[in-house]
This record gives sequence, C-alpha cells and structure tokens, in this order.
Amino acid sequence: MKIYLDNGATTKVDPEVVKVINEYLVDKYGNASSLHQFGREAKEALEKSREIIARKINALPEEIVFTSSGSEADNIAIKEIAFQNMGKHIITSKVEHPAVLDTCKFLEKIGFKITYLNVDKNGFIDLKQLENSIKANTILVSIIHANNEIGTVQNIKKIGEICKRKKILFHTDAVQSFTKVPIDVKKDNISLMSLSSHKIHGPKGVGVLFVKKGVKIGKLIHGGHQENNLRAGTENIPGIVGFAKAVELQKEEHIKKMIKLRDKLTKGLLKIPSTQLNGDNRLCNNVSVSFNFIEGEALLTHLDFKGIAVSTGSACTSQSLEPSHVLMAIGLSHEVAHGTIRFTLSRFTTEKEIDYTIKNMKEVVKNLRKISPIHKGFKYNKEEYKHS
Amino acid sequence: MKIYLDNGATTKVDPEVVKVINEYLVDKYGNASSLHQFGREAKEALEKSREIIARKINALPEEIVFTSSGSEADNIAIKEIAFQNMGKHIITSKVEHPAVLDTCKFLEKIGFKITYLNVDKNGFIDLKQLENSIKANTILVSIIHANNEIGTVQNIKKIGEICKRKKILFHTDAVQSFTKVPIDVKKDNISLMSLSSHKIHGPKGVGVLFVKKGVKIGKLIHGGHQENNLRAGTENIPGIVGFAKAVELQKEEHIKKMIKLRDKLTKGLLKIPSTQLNGDNRLCNNVSVSFNFIEGEALLTHLDFKGIAVSTGSACTSQSLEPSHVLMAIGLSHEVAHGTIRFTLSRFTTEKEIDYTIKNMKEVVKNLRKISPIHKGFKYNKEEYKHS
Repeated sequence: MKIYLDNGATTKVDPEVVKVINEYLVDKYGNASSLHQFGREAKEALEKSREIIARKINALPEEIVFTSSGSEADNIAIKEIAFQNMGKHIITSKVEHPAVLDTCKFLEKIGFKITYLNVDKNGFIDLKQLENSIKANTILVSIIHANNEIGTVQNIKKIGEICKRKKILFHTDAVQSFTKVPIDVKKDNISLMSLSSHKIHGPKGVGVLFVKKGVKIGKLIHGGHQENNLRAGTENIPGIVGFAKAVELQKEEHIKKMIKLRDKLTKGLLKIPSTQLNGDNRLCNNVSVSFNFIEGEALLTHLDFKGIAVSTGSACTSQSLEPSHVLMAIGLSHEVAHGTIRFTLSRFTTEKEIDYTIKNMKEVVKNLRKISPIHKGFKYNKEEYKHS
Repeated sequence: MKIYLDNGATTKVDPEVVKVINEYLVDKYGNASSLHQFGREAKEALEKSREIIARKINALPEEIVFTSSGSEADNIAIKEIAFQNMGKHIITSKVEHPAVLDTCKFLEKIGFKITYLNVDKNGFIDLKQLENSIKANTILVSIIHANNEIGTVQNIKKIGEICKRKKILFHTDAVQSFTKVPIDVKKDNISLMSLSSHKIHGPKGVGVLFVKKGVKIGKLIHGGHQENNLRAGTENIPGIVGFAKAVELQKEEHIKKMIKLRDKLTKGLLKIPSTQLNGDNRLCNNVSVSFNFIEGEALLTHLDFKGIAVSTGSACTSQSLEPSHVLMAIGLSHEVAHGTIRFTLSRFTTEKEIDYTIKNMKEVVKNLRKISPIHKGFKYNKEEYKHS
C-alpha cells in the first residue's frame, strides 16, 4: 500500500490537468510573444488562464503575474517593494515560510529593519502587537495566510484592515490556503499575494504573484517585456494552463471530504497517549501532532517502510537538523518539536487510507517508545539524545 | 499546411520528452526535498538529470543549477556576481539577448559601469576591443555564444582565453547554441553559462545556470536550501527530467539535416532580388534575410495566412516597434532592418516545408513590393512610411 499524506509538500497532478498540459506541450507549443498563429494561440491560453485565476480571488486579470513558484512570488513581492524604499521597516512573523523569512533576513543584512511578530500557542499573531509595531517608516507587512506546518489560518481580513487604515502595503503568502480558504483580495485589503500551482494538483514550476493595481514593483528577472513588463522570460504556457485548470477543478465538496477525514485522523491519533495537536482554526487538510518521547525522523522512516508518506515539518526545511522555527515559535520544547509529524491530506485521500494510517501509527509509536531512552524514564541528556 | 519555422522562439516538445514529463506529473510526483519514498524518487531523478546535462558540457553535476528559464539564469549570473562587487565594471556586447542587456542597463542605473562592445557587419565582437576594454575593476565579461537573431556563433574559446589570462569571470548565454554547437566549459574557460530547455524540444519553464566550482554567487530567489542553496523553490522535477531527456535525444545527424535544409532555404531566398543574408558562421538552424523595400511585419502576416510561422526578430522583443538592436549593431539601416525575417529550423523541419516556404516567399515578396511606395521609386518619407 502506498499512502501519500504529504500534500503540504506537493501534490499529484490531476489527470484532467495533465490532459491540458499535454495539449500545450505537443500541439499548441507557440511562444506567447510570437505574432503568428502559434503565438496567438499561446497568448490566448495565457490570458484565459490569467482570467480564471483572477476570478478565483476577485482580482483583475492585469493584477496577476505568473512566476515560476510561490517562493519566487514571495521574493518579488518583498524585495521589489523593499528596493524602492531602501533601509525602511518591514513587519513579518516568526512563523513564515522560509521564502519570506530568508528574504527578510537577507534584507536585514543589507540595512532594512525587520520586526518578526510573535505568535501564541496556536500560531496566531497578536493584532495589537502588529498595530503597535507599525512605525512611520514601515513600508510592508507580510503575514502568511495559512501556516504550512501547523495549518493555522490567520485572520487576514483583520490584518488587511489594520494595513489599510495605516496605509501600509500588505503581502500574504497564500500558497497553502489557496482554493482551501476563500480569499477576496478586495474585501481582505490585500496588496500582494503569493500562490502556487503544485499544492493544488497543478504542475510544479508555476506560481502567481497578485499585485494590486497601482502598486509599483520592480523586476526581479530583467529581460523581455513578458507579464506586463514585470517578469522576463518565455511564459511557461503548459504550466500556466495547467495551474488554471487545477483551480477550476477545485470544488467545495473536496473541502468537506477533507475535513471529515482530517477530523477522523485527528481523533484517531489523539487516542495515542502523550500526544498533542498543534495549531487552531486549521486548514481542511492539515493535522500536526506531537508524539512525546519519540524522534519525528524515526517515526517518518518507520511509516515510510509501511508505505505511508508524511513529513516532520515543511519540505523546504527538511534538510535542516534544527527544530522547526514554527514549532519553536508556538512554544514547544526542542524534544516535543522533534517528535512532531505533519499529515496533509488531499481530495484523493480515502477513508481506508486514514484507517490504515491510524492503525499503523499506533503500532509504530508503541514500538518506538519501547526503545526510547527518554520514555523509559532516563534523565534527558542532550548529547546522548543527539546520538541515539 | 502548417509550417513552423520559428524554432528560435520556442520548439515543439519531443513526444519522448512528453512521456517522461507525464511519468513525473502523475506517478512520481514527490517533492525532491521530502525524506520519504516519493521524495527520494524525485531526488534521484533530479540528480540523474543534473548528471546528464553536466556531461553534455563537460561540467561537474554540482556545477549545474536548475532555474525556471534562460532569462533567469542570465539574471542570476550577472546580478549575483555584480552584487558582490558593487559599482565595478562589466563588459558585454551590443548584440546580447534582452535578459543580459536589460540586466546590464539595470545595473548601470544603480551605479555599475558597463561597456557594450561593438560588433562587425557579421555580428562578431572584436577580440582586441574586448582586451582593451578590460580595466583593473572589471569583474565580468558576458558575451552571447550564438546570436538569437542572426545566428552568428562567437569564438567563445578565444574570449575564454582572454578572460582566463586577465583573471576575469566569463559568462555566456548559450541558450540558442546548446546542443547545436559543441561546448566544453573547461576547454572554453567558461565561468558561468545559461541554458534553456524549450529551445531544444524540452518543456518551457526550465533553464540551467552552469556555475564553475569555486565561483561564489548570491541567491536571486531566497527561501529553502534547494539547488545546493543557490536557488529556493520546489524543484520542477517533470520539467527538469524533460530537459535532460531532450538533451539525450539530440543527435549529430539532426545538425547535418538542419544544415542541408538551412542551405537550401538560404539559396532559394537569396534568388529573390534585393535580398541579403545576415550573420556569418551561423547556427545550423538560422537563416536571417533582409528583403529590401518591404516591412517585415507585413511579410510575417502574409506568410502567416499561408500557414508559415516565422519571426521578424526574437520573440522576446516582438512587442517593440523599435528596429532590432542586433540588426542596428551590424550596421543595417532602419529600412533594411525593418524588412528582415528570421527563419529558424528544427530537426522536425522537412524538405517539403522548405520548398513550400521558398515558393511562397517569392510570391509574397513580389506582391508586397508591387504595393510598396519605396519600391516604386517614391522618395522615402519617414512619416508616410510609418503609416503605410
């Protein structure tokens, strides 16, 4: 049995999406900048895709800039606002995706001031702290919509209201929430927003940056005049039409199905002793549980043997030995953070898979705790633990 | 009949390439950063692709950085060397791709000194001028390998020798030449090189930056630790394996076939009176011909009616009304530059298509010249011409 519960890292491409990708790889392969029939056909597909994605978030088509990933969208949003306001102040949080955090750290090094907002035990920022952190030279607030590790969905409407009142640009990384939580860029007062295709059964290599009309940004990639002169490079038409198709295929019933299975999985896992659920107001597909007295990597490996794919944190930080910055920010100890597993479902997840996962988790946790020196009551010793 | 002679803009994806792309869209869809079986499968495909591309240019696998396009590779190469040497001097040429030229213009605005080398009537830079332009504070030379409009292949070996002797980094945009002209990064003394997938029957949305071991570059896209910590964002595995497959499918016999058809097309077109061939030491698939007394756009449109897709310049500059910067640099007048058409063949081009193209070009040129005010002997008037 092969069970994929790591849809927060990436997803299987929907067969319907594969069909349209292939159409544009093989027959309609023109360059959207070319003036002949092949080019016009590509350009038409590009603009139609732009409209589909714009409609989904209540934006105008000209507010949609196609990028190669959510990370690239985050980089453009933050750097290309920053570079027009050298040395000024940016507010973000301690639970952002690395594409936002690492960009802010880079900007800090070259002279920008960055405020990293704290979060509470469920991962919510404090709206009062946000408001109090805004200074005369604050140019941008960047807060993740739904956290990629613990699934907590922030109140972006409230954040948008504060930014609007204070006349500060508001960027949100909505890579995990897009199509799972309704987003209305107008009502939510969003100035810039990052989206990604491969988290919603679209192809890898495509993202979107929403840029509100009137917001001036520079170019991260210089060259041709593609994407309304905001991003150079031949447009990835097969990827872009695939992304739009993936958006069209998302249905309300998928969310209901995921919530049902998510809740079943949560309930099953929490029956295991010494466990805790992380996050609150969570995404329909996210279950982050800490299993005390166990190493998450050992858990992951044992589950992998049984054909179950899960993650210890986000894929983008998986090479790191440090405990997750998100789990540390919500106040978990090193030990508990290291014993945390993220299960992320998709609309293709079945009840049978959830039952199988719960059953196996119980066994694996039990077996691992049997051999865990901490569980046996040994006094925790950092050096020993590291090498165990 | 649908004849595609704009392979310099983009190419049809090879059916064999489509097959491997689909494999990684549907079954092997893991995130290469994930630690489970799906992730390891993706990682393995990523590293195998890296080896295939490295081998093709005699590089080490760790010298290959996957990007989303040739334009992005150009941007990383130039900016991320520049930003470590603020305000210093860069040498490039007047016939570069917009991704290099526009990046250099951007750097010029923020305080860098740029030398734009002249080219002769065939598009070659003057190696003496290059050598004389090198100053104590020169940090980088960026010269295109094969020109994207007129197909002229520069002597990069000689350029590499000069840069090596003067201890200056050498970047080349080899997007048009890759797999068509042999490249050996060691023998050619190349420090950085940009490649693209969609010009060689691979998918759009994938490029490569070769970075010689020991050359330190910054990150254009911050975030996760992907690509040896040089480029953040989930790797586009289907695109990357597609690119590698496209490289593997390139054969010596394709080049021979293209040269034969290119020469037939050239010969046929030059039989039309008042024409001239542009470039020298040209790519196996490039024919750039100027047709006096005609507007290139009118020619393109008439050919398009007959099902023949060609281009007036590069796709990346097609939205511009300005005459091509490449054709101006080789000394063409505005009028002759405006009457220039680029035909770019592929290994799928047939002799029948070439015959049909020659036949139709003769007719179309004849008909357009009949109604051309300049051809009838009218004195050229810029304003009238503009609106004709």
